[in-house]
Amino acid sequence: MIIAKSISKVRKIINKAKKENKTIGFVPTMGALHKGHLSLVKRAKKECDFVVVSIFVNPIQFGPKEDYKKYPRTFKEDKKLLLGYTDLLFFPYVETMYKKDNSTFVEETILSKFLCGASRPGHFKGVCTVVAKLFNIVEPDIAYFGQKDYQQALIIKRMVRDLNFTVKIKVLPIVREKDGLAMSSRNTYLNEKERKEAVCLYKALNLAKNIIKEGERDSKVVIERMKNLILSYSSAKIDYIKITDPYTLEDVEKIEKKVLVALAVFIGTTRLIDNILINV
Amino acid sequence: MIIAKSISKVRKIINKAKKENKTIGFVPTMGALHKGHLSLVKRAKKECDFVVVSIFVNPIQFGPKEDYKKYPRTFKEDKKLLLGYTDLLFFPYVETMYKKDNSTFVEETILSKFLCGASRPGHFKGVCTVVAKLFNIVEPDIAYFGQKDYQQALIIKRMVRDLNFTVKIKVLPIVREKDGLAMSSRNTYLNEKERKEAVCLYKALNLAKNIIKEGERDSKVVIERMKNLILSYSSAKIDYIKITDPYTLEDVEKIEKKVLVALAVFIGTTRLIDNILINV
Repeated sequence: MIIAKSISKVRKIINKAKKENKTIGFVPTMGALHKGHLSLVKRAKKECDFVVVSIFVNPIQFGPKEDYKKYPRTFKEDKKLLLGYTDLLFFPYVETMYKKDNSTFVEETILSKFLCGASRPGHFKGVCTVVAKLFNIVEPDIAYFGQKDYQQALIIKRMVRDLNFTVKIKVLPIVREKDGLAMSSRNTYLNEKERKEAVCLYKALNLAKNIIKEGERDSKVVIERMKNLILSYSSAKIDYIKITDPYTLEDVEKIEKKVLVALAVFIGTTRLIDNILINV
Repeated sequence: MIIAKSISKVRKIINKAKKENKTIGFVPTMGALHKGHLSLVKRAKKECDFVVVSIFVNPIQFGPKEDYKKYPRTFKEDKKLLLGYTDLLFFPYVETMYKKDNSTFVEETILSKFLCGASRPGHFKGVCTVVAKLFNIVEPDIAYFGQKDYQQALIIKRMVRDLNFTVKIKVLPIVREKDGLAMSSRNTYLNEKERKEAVCLYKALNLAKNIIKEGERDSKVVIERMKNLILSYSSAKIDYIKITDPYTLEDVEKIEKKVLVALAVFIGTTRLIDNILINV
């Protein structure tokens, strides 16, 4: 595994791989890797000749009151986890990615208004900008994203379509802990009690699935039931619970075809998200 | 010369050229080609193995009250002018470039606030977005722009740097009519009297050059002299006259190093721009 901190080194190595007709698989991450990330890297290794992983905690996707500074940085452990699956690890400095007078941004303006975009203004602009940059640096054939960040993956797909990037986007299933909690780098913020209560997101999604499967078609009723479940946990504070069209992310009132049930919940001060696609 | 209306056709042809190790030169235009455009295409032909020209009147870079509808479309003549210099002419439909639910934009947020950006809000966002798309479609090694649109070229260079595009940007000198009027597709809007008076932009730039060369260092004085010259033409209405730093586009009060003198003037209802770099 080669580790590159500079863009020019990445370009040199990628150009060589491309000249050898290798397909490039790419997994952009913020590090603090867990089994969710690894499922993406392993899939990339299966499907592509040359696997690039980036680790970059992207400052411009964090709001001023968010956790940029305390976001977990575990490079040594990350490196070990990637061995055997990764050909090139791109680990740039912030100053490498953003010049002092950086002034160009990529913004998706419709899908970004919903769900996490409503709670985190500017977040997806930061995500789109850094991913566009990374796509231009790595020039991957396939890039892999996790469904836990469903909205992010949908927005990246839209960006790829709208700006005519050639990369193919693949979205892989959520990887969960034994109790159902979706893997997330932010789970490390939770204390013991919070960690136990964090399962409420998954429980609420399961409840939604069950009552929809049983015939409930009114989103309000489903959301109310989820809310009650979550608020029975003392650490939980709801940011949003939404039942939406999986393609437009617009609210669905009557559940008549496939829906996305998505939620964001603060467990203590830690904001967690989760989601499920439900077919009816 | 191959003409392609679809993105997939462009990609197929470009991929073939790249496999043959050809360098790709690219000249993005809105058509209504004149000698200014042709100077770019001819330079591309000299420097690159494979020359791509795009003709696309980009709706999203026009304001609601601007001339998108009446912008000259002269495809037959354009085609003839490009023969011998162009390998691939990309001439897409609007619907090919923008899906109905297109929602992703590229925005440069600092340089775009000055000069034409102040008069034409959203203009450079439209330009950056379409140029980013075209770069992703054509994947050129070198792209050519004219200095008449100095600010545009500067912003594109910034975008390329900030978003890590690999293309190299070259900016070629303004091509002028015999009387000094900068070549522009919009010159065709001018009636006979206006065409004569349109020379006032060039005359004002020359005046600025002369009085700065003679030692004037106060931008206010220079601008006042330019203003008086222009307003002696009955068809002329000034949009802006600015003396700025050529890199930041910020106003310069005391002229102590290289400056950009740039102006936009309405001749009748036609908005024309011109500029000059002056070394002191």
